[in-house]
Amino acid sequence: MGTPPLPLVAAIGDPAGVGPELFLKAWVARREKGLAPFALIGSLSLMQAVTDRCGGAVRAVDTPAAVADVFGEALPVIDLGPMADTPGKPSQEGARLALHALETAAGLTIDGKASALVTGPIAKAALQDIGFPHPGQTEFCAAACGVAADDAVMMLAGPSLRVVPITVHVPLADVPSLLSIDLIVRRVRIAAAALQRDFGLAAPRIAIAGLNPHAGEQGRLGDEDIAIIAPAVEALRAKGLDTTGPTPGDAMFHAEARATYDLAVCMYHDQALIPLKALDFDRGVNVTLGLPIIRTSPDHGTAFALAGTGRASAGPTIAALRMAADCAGRRAT
Amino acid sequence: MGTPPLPLVAAIGDPAGVGPELFLKAWVARREKGLAPFALIGSLSLMQAVTDRCGGAVRAVDTPAAVADVFGEALPVIDLGPMADTPGKPSQEGARLALHALETAAGLTIDGKASALVTGPIAKAALQDIGFPHPGQTEFCAAACGVAADDAVMMLAGPSLRVVPITVHVPLADVPSLLSIDLIVRRVRIAAAALQRDFGLAAPRIAIAGLNPHAGEQGRLGDEDIAIIAPAVEALRAKGLDTTGPTPGDAMFHAEARATYDLAVCMYHDQALIPLKALDFDRGVNVTLGLPIIRTSPDHGTAFALAGTGRASAGPTIAALRMAADCAGRRAT
Repeated sequence: MGTPPLPLVAAIGDPAGVGPELFLKAWVARREKGLAPFALIGSLSLMQAVTDRCGGAVRAVDTPAAVADVFGEALPVIDLGPMADTPGKPSQEGARLALHALETAAGLTIDGKASALVTGPIAKAALQDIGFPHPGQTEFCAAACGVAADDAVMMLAGPSLRVVPITVHVPLADVPSLLSIDLIVRRVRIAAAALQRDFGLAAPRIAIAGLNPHAGEQGRLGDEDIAIIAPAVEALRAKGLDTTGPTPGDAMFHAEARATYDLAVCMYHDQALIPLKALDFDRGVNVTLGLPIIRTSPDHGTAFALAGTGRASAGPTIAALRMAADCAGRRAT
Repeated sequence: MGTPPLPLVAAIGDPAGVGPELFLKAWVARREKGLAPFALIGSLSLMQAVTDRCGGAVRAVDTPAAVADVFGEALPVIDLGPMADTPGKPSQEGARLALHALETAAGLTIDGKASALVTGPIAKAALQDIGFPHPGQTEFCAAACGVAADDAVMMLAGPSLRVVPITVHVPLADVPSLLSIDLIVRRVRIAAAALQRDFGLAAPRIAIAGLNPHAGEQGRLGDEDIAIIAPAVEALRAKGLDTTGPTPGDAMFHAEARATYDLAVCMYHDQALIPLKALDFDRGVNVTLGLPIIRTSPDHGTAFALAGTGRASAGPTIAALRMAADCAGRRAT
């Protein structure tokens, strides 16, 4: 008999958001959804309070190694200290717990004590108020792994679609000047390698969107499609990647088009996120590609207004846990 | 007994594209789809050739007034002269017929001889080669009606969604500088008036998208959402319109969000067309709002590669004919 596989670790996210209840709901659905064992990194007292309103059970564990024995009976919690249950009412104390949980969970994963990291939703502004120097958890994870921020690639994955935006949280006016052949090639190569290693796609088919309407209509509606995107597609092909484009953004996302590729690479946030959320709302997983660790996250925010109401859907959290376990399983074999 | 209602007129579009066969297919489906009588403005000899490969029947009529008597038995054609049937092989002669048909059909509608104009797909570059000075048929129709191009507002409408892009066929890099409070207010007011008059929406609910990711995150990701879009929303509210926004683009197009509005106003082409085509591919109708006439068009191009194969779907053409008839009916009552 070998040792059981390593568990996942889940960072609780902002304790006043929907993270705590959604991880608990996911644990309640563990058998129905076939979830792999995971530990929640957070506050035991908070989670006990959450069981009072949501059901389920929690139990403290000291290390991920103890998770396998507990997971059938209770959600294993690595306790970072007491925290009041104040759904919908964020606090600096809560932001500090969210950060501590993120650092602890990332550290356990980087140290090989856990198979993958799943992060709950945080309030970025609240974290920045307590000195968090990163735009978000993706950049934190990159820094924690010693990876340049540009080499940590955000992918959103739903049942209908996987998308990677080349630029992400920047003003739309800055997008054209941020695009370059090198940036597109670099990020697509990272994404392709991750799809091969972690998603079981031996030869991923990658469709690359144009920037301008109709991919620029041969330059009549902007020259970036000709000057930047088309050469990037050629360079990627020259490296042996199955790449097409630049394809007009509006021609890429109907069912027939989606059947022709495994990944849609988009030039900016809304070009990627609009079709993903139109088609796969509440089912999207945010995956960070290009890290030595596996990291996923449900694709939604803290939803403070929903916290404590019981109305938030655990679907994205369950999808993030499953995708993390699937990727970890592929790396382990 | 009153006189029968005026028929629609359909401009054939490029005769080498899918327009001729799709109007014929629509006529064949006239009873099943409940289509109002329409005349095709084009070439009788061409349409006779198309019946040889597609079935159906055509008959020449001299004026729209003759359409009602013929429509049950044959597709009425107002003949502009002979044209060879060369599907997939565009020609200058074909471009001239397309333009002649567009001018004739628009003229009949403007003169009150037809209730609405439905335009088939044209090849813009081919028309421009023979001196057509407009970017597309929308701008031609505006000019023919004596309306400023800025006041002819393109709406795409499908079963799931109606969208109006504030800017359309311009490079993405130009979008931020083209946006203004005045432009948004002007175009939304035109759209709202048309939804009231032609679409039976007494108090249309209008959702306005932000420009930047997350609608700019309080200015951290660009200032246009605060400086331009929010004041435009306020100005529209002050005029009594039920307007919300700026809403993050990626939060606007899932089913629950769509249920809260009748029209999504977007800042640029792909922001509007990506969700429309992702959700309603092959079912979208292009409607020009703000004209004294009603004008619709199937939301696709000439599809030269499909012309003559029989594989092109008549769905969008049928939807364009139905929407034109519905709007005309509302204006007539």
